[in-house]
Amino acid sequence: MRKKERKEPVPAADAERDDELDALYRTFTETNLIPLWTQIDDLMPEQPTPRARPHVWRWSELYPLAQRAGDLVPVGRGGERRAIALANPGLGGRPYASPTLWAAIQYLGPHEVAPEHRHTQNAFRFIIEGEGVWTVVNGDPVAMRRGDFLLTPGWNWHGHQNVTETPMAWLDGLDIPLVHQTDSSFFEFGPAALTDTSTPERSRAERLWAHPGVQPVALLGERPSSPISAYRWEHTDRALADQLAIEAEGHPATAAPGHAAVRFSNPTTGRDVLPTIRAEFHRLRARKSTVVRREVGSSVWQVFSGRGTAVVGGIENRLEHGDIFVVPSWVEYEIHAEADLDLFRFSDAPVFEALHLYRELTGRESTE
Amino acid sequence: MRKKERKEPVPAADAERDDELDALYRTFTETNLIPLWTQIDDLMPEQPTPRARPHVWRWSELYPLAQRAGDLVPVGRGGERRAIALANPGLGGRPYASPTLWAAIQYLGPHEVAPEHRHTQNAFRFIIEGEGVWTVVNGDPVAMRRGDFLLTPGWNWHGHQNVTETPMAWLDGLDIPLVHQTDSSFFEFGPAALTDTSTPERSRAERLWAHPGVQPVALLGERPSSPISAYRWEHTDRALADQLAIEAEGHPATAAPGHAAVRFSNPTTGRDVLPTIRAEFHRLRARKSTVVRREVGSSVWQVFSGRGTAVVGGIENRLEHGDIFVVPSWVEYEIHAEADLDLFRFSDAPVFEALHLYRELTGRESTE
Amino acid sequence: MRKKERKEPVPAADAERDDELDALYRTFTETNLIPLWTQIDDLMPEQPTPRARPHVWRWSELYPLAQRAGDLVPVGRGGERRAIALANPGLGGRPYASPTLWAAIQYLGPHEVAPEHRHTQNAFRFIIEGEGVWTVVNGDPVAMRRGDFLLTPGWNWHGHQNVTETPMAWLDGLDIPLVHQTDSSFFEFGPAALTDTSTPERSRAERLWAHPGVQPVALLGERPSSPISAYRWEHTDRALADQLAIEAEGHPATAAPGHAAVRFSNPTTGRDVLPTIRAEFHRLRARKSTVVRREVGSSVWQVFSGRGTAVVGGIENRLEHGDIFVVPSWVEYEIHAEADLDLFRFSDAPVFEALHLYRELTGRESTE
Amino acid sequence: MRKKERKEPVPAADAERDDELDALYRTFTETNLIPLWTQIDDLMPEQPTPRARPHVWRWSELYPLAQRAGDLVPVGRGGERRAIALANPGLGGRPYASPTLWAAIQYLGPHEVAPEHRHTQNAFRFIIEGEGVWTVVNGDPVAMRRGDFLLTPGWNWHGHQNVTETPMAWLDGLDIPLVHQTDSSFFEFGPAALTDTSTPERSRAERLWAHPGVQPVALLGERPSSPISAYRWEHTDRALADQLAIEAEGHPATAAPGHAAVRFSNPTTGRDVLPTIRAEFHRLRARKSTVVRREVGSSVWQVFSGRGTAVVGGIENRLEHGDIFVVPSWVEYEIHAEADLDLFRFSDAPVFEALHLYRELTGRESTE
Repeated sequence: MRKKERKEPVPAADAERDDELDALYRTFTETNLIPLWTQIDDLMPEQPTPRARPHVWRWSELYPLAQRAGDLVPVGRGGERRAIALANPGLGGRPYASPTLWAAIQYLGPHEVAPEHRHTQNAFRFIIEGEGVWTVVNGDPVAMRRGDFLLTPGWNWHGHQNVTETPMAWLDGLDIPLVHQTDSSFFEFGPAALTDTSTPERSRAERLWAHPGVQPVALLGERPSSPISAYRWEHTDRALADQLAIEAEGHPATAAPGHAAVRFSNPTTGRDVLPTIRAEFHRLRARKSTVVRREVGSSVWQVFSGRGTAVVGGIENRLEHGDIFVVPSWVEYEIHAEADLDLFRFSDAPVFEALHLYRELTGRESTE
Repeated sequence: MRKKERKEPVPAADAERDDELDALYRTFTETNLIPLWTQIDDLMPEQPTPRARPHVWRWSELYPLAQRAGDLVPVGRGGERRAIALANPGLGGRPYASPTLWAAIQYLGPHEVAPEHRHTQNAFRFIIEGEGVWTVVNGDPVAMRRGDFLLTPGWNWHGHQNVTETPMAWLDGLDIPLVHQTDSSFFEFGPAALTDTSTPERSRAERLWAHPGVQPVALLGERPSSPISAYRWEHTDRALADQLAIEAEGHPATAAPGHAAVRFSNPTTGRDVLPTIRAEFHRLRARKSTVVRREVGSSVWQVFSGRGTAVVGGIENRLEHGDIFVVPSWVEYEIHAEADLDLFRFSDAPVFEALHLYRELTGRESTE
Repeated sequence: MRKKERKEPVPAADAERDDELDALYRTFTETNLIPLWTQIDDLMPEQPTPRARPHVWRWSELYPLAQRAGDLVPVGRGGERRAIALANPGLGGRPYASPTLWAAIQYLGPHEVAPEHRHTQNAFRFIIEGEGVWTVVNGDPVAMRRGDFLLTPGWNWHGHQNVTETPMAWLDGLDIPLVHQTDSSFFEFGPAALTDTSTPERSRAERLWAHPGVQPVALLGERPSSPISAYRWEHTDRALADQLAIEAEGHPATAAPGHAAVRFSNPTTGRDVLPTIRAEFHRLRARKSTVVRREVGSSVWQVFSGRGTAVVGGIENRLEHGDIFVVPSWVEYEIHAEADLDLFRFSDAPVFEALHLYRELTGRESTE
Repeated sequence: MRKKERKEPVPAADAERDDELDALYRTFTETNLIPLWTQIDDLMPEQPTPRARPHVWRWSELYPLAQRAGDLVPVGRGGERRAIALANPGLGGRPYASPTLWAAIQYLGPHEVAPEHRHTQNAFRFIIEGEGVWTVVNGDPVAMRRGDFLLTPGWNWHGHQNVTETPMAWLDGLDIPLVHQTDSSFFEFGPAALTDTSTPERSRAERLWAHPGVQPVALLGERPSSPISAYRWEHTDRALADQLAIEAEGHPATAAPGHAAVRFSNPTTGRDVLPTIRAEFHRLRARKSTVVRREVGSSVWQVFSGRGTAVVGGIENRLEHGDIFVVPSWVEYEIHAEADLDLFRFSDAPVFEALHLYRELTGRESTE
């Protein structure tokens, strides 16, 4: 891409003109007006210039801090959740992982309960480790276990309870920044106690919807969000293993050599699980790398197991179990596996696809 | 609905006029013209008046005849398949179960091979009993086992082989009549020998696509037909059992009380498995009945297990294992289970939905 | 495409075997069964082998016959319409232009009224000449004038009246054969007298919907059929003239050099005007030809003005004002203009597109 | 709606605990973490609490300031456009009418040229008065005249020229804030001189696409943005007049009594003209009012002619020719006409509809 060379919008002028211009600009300000020509470089750059920065949060730091919060801060009505948000260092102290995405570690101590509420923000949970918490979604208790990916789509009632003696922590992802920025938040409090405290192995939503290609006739019809409440690790793991095995047998299956990838999908549409959030799971064999990429929109990755490195915007970071990193819009990135590396990923791609603003670029841009 | 009272289109006229009219009608015929007013009652009835009739074919008769054909008629290039079509007695000796649907029993003897071909007609197989045949779809061998529902969508290469000492028979369903009637058949011969004679437990298509809600990133995108080559009985059975269990727990899940039903779906769209064919599986608890229904379009049912009766167009028929019956368009029907009754069903509903011609009516129409 | 060489399905066999086979075939017949292997060549040809034939009906013959019917046959309840269908000579005396399409000349004498009714069949009218008839669609009177294309989508009430001293005749197009073949006809009689006998220049539907790109906020939403009741000749003519002018200015606009073409569309979806019928208007400059084509599905063309020839399936026919010809599925055709040639066209392409059975081939297939 | 009563998230605690909590919060900050429980009231309000404020900009002030800018600031490469943005007083000095929408007055003096460029931001122009400027969109010159609504969808090349001795000013609308906030801006400079300086009455895009319901066969297919470059005032005006006339005749047509409204639409989809922006025109008869409404998302209105008042968020403002006002998300508003009142409106509704975040409420909410 040719380098942008924006010339001076306002030519050199004599002193009288300068005074008049100053006066005009003052009047603009008083009249709540701002000229484009002083703003265009910032407002309409030649390619995205995100304020959000690539950043890695270490699980080895996050978990002890969540634990400490567990000791000091009760969970309950008002605060609603003991969730600690990853605040992108480029976003001025806002609790945003990126301009659109919220990522937080949520911590629930032994026998604690997070009360029921609902909101227009779409939410999911990804379980990096542990078990023993049930989330109750519209009255349907859903077990949370290591490797599972769980949904609470917008305006669904939900609360959580830990039924064990052991605390549990997991990753929460939401579209809070997008909803906040666009003034589309509605929120409603539910009962303080959970509507159903039973602890079934499988939720009703799974028993109705989580069969491959098989749908309940009584509940058919397109829905904006997936009705599958929990995508279980056993299925994700098997799908990834199958892809690598098929690749080894000589057939197309993987995203790139040694790089298996699945997308969690809404069975009623075949599209993304939530209208604003895409979720995927990636598996890289040892010594393999992803293709170098840039994408419009941001994504957040969490290491599920294994180790490797991520090069985001030219800066390399080591990746260990539980580490979370963010890739801002149009920042080049690639991931290398040292040992077999499993990563969960979520992004805001459905937003850009829906608005026809999505682009991606694979391979390294030439820089001559 | 008010009874139609069509008056005489042509009033009584004098003899001279009659002669002139006869002459006109003769000229019409010579000029390849036909007046609407003599045809409208047949052409545009007040509600569908199908020539196809409700009919039951007995598995106890079908299977021995297929076996006999196995003894006498080789399978191979030219005839292509040892398939014996159910010919609706109302359709004038055409091999059509209904005006749109083909249903046949296909029989493959020990170590026989049905050669590869492809055609625009969409096809599926439902396996009422047995195992030991693999169908090779686009080079991917797919095991066929009791209770499975398998797809060969239009223009996919496919052939079959029986690798055992035991013959196997199953139900084939296609849209042959529709495609024939609309002159949209394309057909191409493939190799006489199968492209892959291996006999894996799971096909590659299943390993890529048959995970609940999980899709391969490398192969994403909407497809007109489902990429799942085989919907396995274990998943269908479990989904039906889950529905009945959830109903027993007091939550909505079933199509009607004691009547579980699943639809096989295309995971890339959430819609029907084939553009022209809908496929479902129904389970009725003993002593339960379906709701009385009429539907535009026709359907074919096969009893998988159990026994009961079907009342179609006012005529009751006993249902035993393997029996196949057809319900023509807008004919009232209901099904009763004596013992727990499992039924496979396919229909042409997607055609009518796509063309905005679909209607259905549940409950008995009042006849006063 | 490789020529199909289907071998004998049944090998030569000894006499005993022949007897056994005869017995088996008799049993098949008694049991309402038909083997595929004796039918496959007819049922599943390598490419469409339509029974419908290319044929031309001459306006110079049609109009006098319609006039004669006007003298002898009253129009009214029961016969409903004085419509005379074009019966394809290949379709065994059925009133079908093709297996899916009905085309008829309808004739309404001075001050005659065709009573109101509605049906699931989708209908349109194309006005080759004349004026003075209003069709009342759901209570909204729509003027019919030379060059106009008018819609009565399925299940819309409609009747006609001629308010002049002059008879009027026009082309009716419907999906009667498709609806009949698939047993999806519903029909209901309305009042014998028209619900509104006023004769406005523009219908309410046009005043609401026939503004370029502008939709009424009160009536927004996707509809299966176009809400525009009449596509007026002045707009069609201008769009065609504009295309040829833009082509002459050196910009892309036409379907082929000297060949302008517009499609009538549903403004609420951008797609076809009716779920089962596509309608277009084509203009060929003198001495220009269409590209040679084959298409799955059938189409019917009517010459609006000018003269030329149509080569359909290798047979050339002269085209004069009002002549109507049919192109069966997959039959090669091209049209040549001697003088500037305007043609109206309708087809069943939306059916095949919806069912993913559509194909087309442009240019002449090599035959070596 | 029940008033939200969020209780204290953190209960009163002893001093030691306070110190520990302070330490924890400090560590959070150092680790780029922010707890939800201190932020939730701001982040996830019970209903939208926009920072953007209702505001009116007076045309009587805007136009002279634009003229003054015309005297002092040249237009050309770098600044690109002499556009002055309406800066919502609640949005901290950013040039945003709302969190998603940009609205500006653009001014082009006699014989001035604004150079060609393209960007991913979607843009339109609404012409409140004047004529004599042509905008060249992808090489196609489009006349700009009073009452017209013109599109330059994302990534379309465009530049402007004034070919007269008279300056011209108009309203520009874009999705700049949304694109900026989500880091999805791409921008490319084109030639400094316009690619086509001709001044045709109608653009090629109009000649191809702006015929009611008629589409060019050569260019068919769904597009994310409308291919109609200009929606002309004569069509808009006629559609509005038609609605009011049909209402007077006793048939449904208007948005509310005495309130006609049209939406500009994409003829290839029937949906909004741009993926991110909805545009409508409203006409209120004298002494009529709109229904009281709240909508998720923001809108900007400009008075085209007539006078009246707008009550937005409980504050009444007089409306005169050219006045522009913004309605932030979920703020109650209604408009009253004193004299017949014509208003142009644009909003970000397609964004919220695509993301399933849209809601609206008509009528006054009870406040007991």
